Amino acid sequence: MELWVRIPLRKSHGTPTDSNSEYPKDSWELWNAFRRLCDYDSNLSVALDVESMLLPSQNSLERWLGESVKAVIISTEVIADCFVQTARGYLLTSYGEELITRFFHHSVQIIISGSTLHDLQKESVNITEGKFSLVLVGADGTHTHPYKPYWDYVSNLFYSMELLSEQERIELRYRDRMCTLSQPLKDNLDAEAYEMLEQDSYKYIQYKRAIARALKDRVPNEKASELTTVLMVVGAGRGPLCQSIIGAEKTDRKVKVYAVEKNPNAVVTLHDLVKANGWEGTVTVISCDVRFWNAPERADILVSELLGSFGDNDLSPECLDGAQRFLKPDGISIPFSYTSFIQPVTTSKLYSDIKSHNKHSYFETAYSVKMHSVARLAPSQPVFTFTHPNFSKKHNNEGYRKLYFDLPRDMGSALVHGFAGYFEAFLYDDVHISIEPTTTTPNMFWWFPVFFPLVKPVEVHSKTPIEAHFWRFNDSTKVWYEWSVATFPTGSPIHNTNGSSYWIDL
Amino acid sequence: MELWVRIPLRKSHGTPTDSNSEYPKDSWELWNAFRRLCDYDSNLSVALDVESMLLPSQNSLERWLGESVKAVIISTEVIADCFVQTARGYLLTSYGEELITRFFHHSVQIIISGSTLHDLQKESVNITEGKFSLVLVGADGTHTHPYKPYWDYVSNLFYSMELLSEQERIELRYRDRMCTLSQPLKDNLDAEAYEMLEQDSYKYIQYKRAIARALKDRVPNEKASELTTVLMVVGAGRGPLCQSIIGAEKTDRKVKVYAVEKNPNAVVTLHDLVKANGWEGTVTVISCDVRFWNAPERADILVSELLGSFGDNDLSPECLDGAQRFLKPDGISIPFSYTSFIQPVTTSKLYSDIKSHNKHSYFETAYSVKMHSVARLAPSQPVFTFTHPNFSKKHNNEGYRKLYFDLPRDMGSALVHGFAGYFEAFLYDDVHISIEPTTTTPNMFWWFPVFFPLVKPVEVHSKTPIEAHFWRFNDSTKVWYEWSVATFPTGSPIHNTNGSSYWIDL
Repeated sequence: MELWVRIPLRKSHGTPTDSNSEYPKDSWELWNAFRRLCDYDSNLSVALDVESMLLPSQNSLERWLGESVKAVIISTEVIADCFVQTARGYLLTSYGEELITRFFHHSVQIIISGSTLHDLQKESVNITEGKFSLVLVGADGTHTHPYKPYWDYVSNLFYSMELLSEQERIELRYRDRMCTLSQPLKDNLDAEAYEMLEQDSYKYIQYKRAIARALKDRVPNEKASELTTVLMVVGAGRGPLCQSIIGAEKTDRKVKVYAVEKNPNAVVTLHDLVKANGWEGTVTVISCDVRFWNAPERADILVSELLGSFGDNDLSPECLDGAQRFLKPDGISIPFSYTSFIQPVTTSKLYSDIKSHNKHSYFETAYSVKMHSVARLAPSQPVFTFTHPNFSKKHNNEGYRKLYFDLPRDMGSALVHGFAGYFEAFLYDDVHISIEPTTTTPNMFWWFPVFFPLVKPVEVHSKTPIEAHFWRFNDSTKVWYEWSVATFPTGSPIHNTNGSSYWIDL
Repeated sequence: MELWVRIPLRKSHGTPTDSNSEYPKDSWELWNAFRRLCDYDSNLSVALDVESMLLPSQNSLERWLGESVKAVIISTEVIADCFVQTARGYLLTSYGEELITRFFHHSVQIIISGSTLHDLQKESVNITEGKFSLVLVGADGTHTHPYKPYWDYVSNLFYSMELLSEQERIELRYRDRMCTLSQPLKDNLDAEAYEMLEQDSYKYIQYKRAIARALKDRVPNEKASELTTVLMVVGAGRGPLCQSIIGAEKTDRKVKVYAVEKNPNAVVTLHDLVKANGWEGTVTVISCDVRFWNAPERADILVSELLGSFGDNDLSPECLDGAQRFLKPDGISIPFSYTSFIQPVTTSKLYSDIKSHNKHSYFETAYSVKMHSVARLAPSQPVFTFTHPNFSKKHNNEGYRKLYFDLPRDMGSALVHGFAGYFEAFLYDDVHISIEPTTTTPNMFWWFPVFFPLVKPVEVHSKTPIEAHFWRFNDSTKVWYEWSVATFPTGSPIHNTNGSSYWIDL
């Protein structure tokens, strides 16, 4: 059974909700109070009733994108009010169009309700000038179904939506589908994963750019013919980073490459790649776990792509700490720095999916997920930063960060289901790759954001900051995160204490 | 494993806690934030550190009585500060004594810490005048263990505590032990329960008083010899109410009693009682469920004791509605009115016990429990009232009540684990019985309060009222309660929706 609750889309500005008033000024709070009483039941959805095209602020609307909105009901009266009569007929205001279009992107049904208000006799067809206006008489001059004009209008909005990009189309089937994160040290990638990894060509362009710059900085033009730069690829896989290095040879620098890879299946393909390209003189393939390898010489540059969606979650810090023992004292690491980011989100969809498993540990696990039905409640903030190489003897890779997130003032209250996690990495100089929304590298699809759920959604108010706590811990066998959230006067327990539910094996 | 967290007993007055401050002014909030991070783990307890005998307000201390306080640590320095030096030696201020005594009542250990500060040489013994003062030299003039004086003092406080009353001693073993509520219509009481019920003699004194007054009001003195009043005892059990009626015969009114009882085992004893007392001419025993009995005549007075701890929870309304069909139009019911009450409470003990079963439905069940480790956060308020007889055709026994509870201003924040439930009943005129704390009938022990738990404790602040919702529902087979709580900005789901976890069979 599914229950759709009809909620007016309403939020008056001014004073915040009075706790004693019977009907909240912000209808989101009505919805929130109701579903809280229903214990966040997954069968509960919203049918938003657009009462007027004088819509609440963008920030306050944003919240609904993280909710389970199934339908938007627009009365003919509202449409009549907001259609602008032009020489070409009626046109919906662009704001109204934008609202409907946004909900189309979330597969929301549009329902037209009420009696037909436009006089079918007086209006005429007009679909010229590329802009579709309200058709009130059929093209052949006869009356169509009285609601057909409205239907035509809405469906025209649908068809005039911008087409999805190729990347978006590829990602369509991953939308809001959670995957557990990989165990990069314990498990080997399979061929399909390598295929997908290597398809992310833009990433390797950035690597090539970074390597080229590093080579030039390391070896001045006048010494290009005499000095050979030693590069070690830590986790070479089936060879894409080797290709980036060879591609960077346009700098005319001489390179010597050790391609270290622990996965024997990948090594076979890597050997083939080297042979097929005639790189035997340049690239030496080492079939070994980098942690247990003894390098025959020290490297100028370590090149790796060990980053996970949350930056350090694939244990790049631990691997590079191990690998830097065969880096020259002035050697460099590509990437040389990476930072994880988090952002509080509303996402009823993901919360319901996790809840459906009825297992506490599922709420204490981070997932990789292409978030779509999500409301991002505040700009993301950096959590943990790692730099390489790090020869300080005292450093360790544990960390703790407390962050305060402020909701936009005009958003109203909101519900935090958890945190979206991202990373930004600097390869060399300012050459970077990122999945953090504001600095994201376009056309890169290997990484989906991470989602850290909360076992119980936490209600927050625009006047009170969200206080998030994130920890990164390790012991001799594993690395794990713990997280909790507090907002006056309430909060969550600490999730995943001692890595009891989710960890990454060392 | 048990973990005791040492928390200073501290609460500064003035402005409420600033959400940005690192250390809350009210140390209860420190404790609350910590155990919330630990997800209200049952192994977590408090060792309260008394830093100064300038104690926080009584209301704010009250909260700790609902918490799992295992120890109170008092430093010798604090004791030194607050001992009043008198001619007879040192005396603890009465407020300090009261604090320690209160915690003794909750089996809390008292720990004296710090170095011995009183000069053993200079002081002398004094235990005269019934008041025990600090003994700093052994009775024989030799030095005792340096801490012995402190120990003596504390243990003397223990021994000088008021003895428990007989009722309290009987109830000792029931303290904080939850029992599920009875199914009065489905199940029959056993002999032990009847024994206990009948021992509650004060209750029957009240019934006798009420019946006597009703008889006098109904039959004027001058008609006492000619009119016979017909009484029906609905649920006569083994006969205590019959005894109350016969006892009320001192009014010289003539009575005829029908004692209706559905439990065949009780009927046997009831017959014996009638025979043994020679009541055959007055009392007719009817072995029948009152709902299916056809009375040979109409009654003047219905007498019943069908009340549960929450008043109507033993289905007195439904039974008396059924029984009133053989009541005269001007007939009366004893009791004629009863009201349930609720009160928000902190009770870590009961919450932990329920949680230990790891079953959601246990949180949606009401229990009968002699609450001891409990903090009552606000005065109780009436919920549902029933009056009898009620010949209105439209009335039904469903109900809904919304209540607002204000925490005392000087209490600070608190945690609501659920609601304590009580009842007050009026038998006749102003003759009443009650277990509601402010109107409680002394020396009555049959009823323990009811506890309605919350699946997740709700944090409340003295500035925001607690909004409680209670429903009483019935269908053709059962009666049940639902409840929820809200406090800006958060709240609970509705508990026991559709009576899914807890109900009373009709």
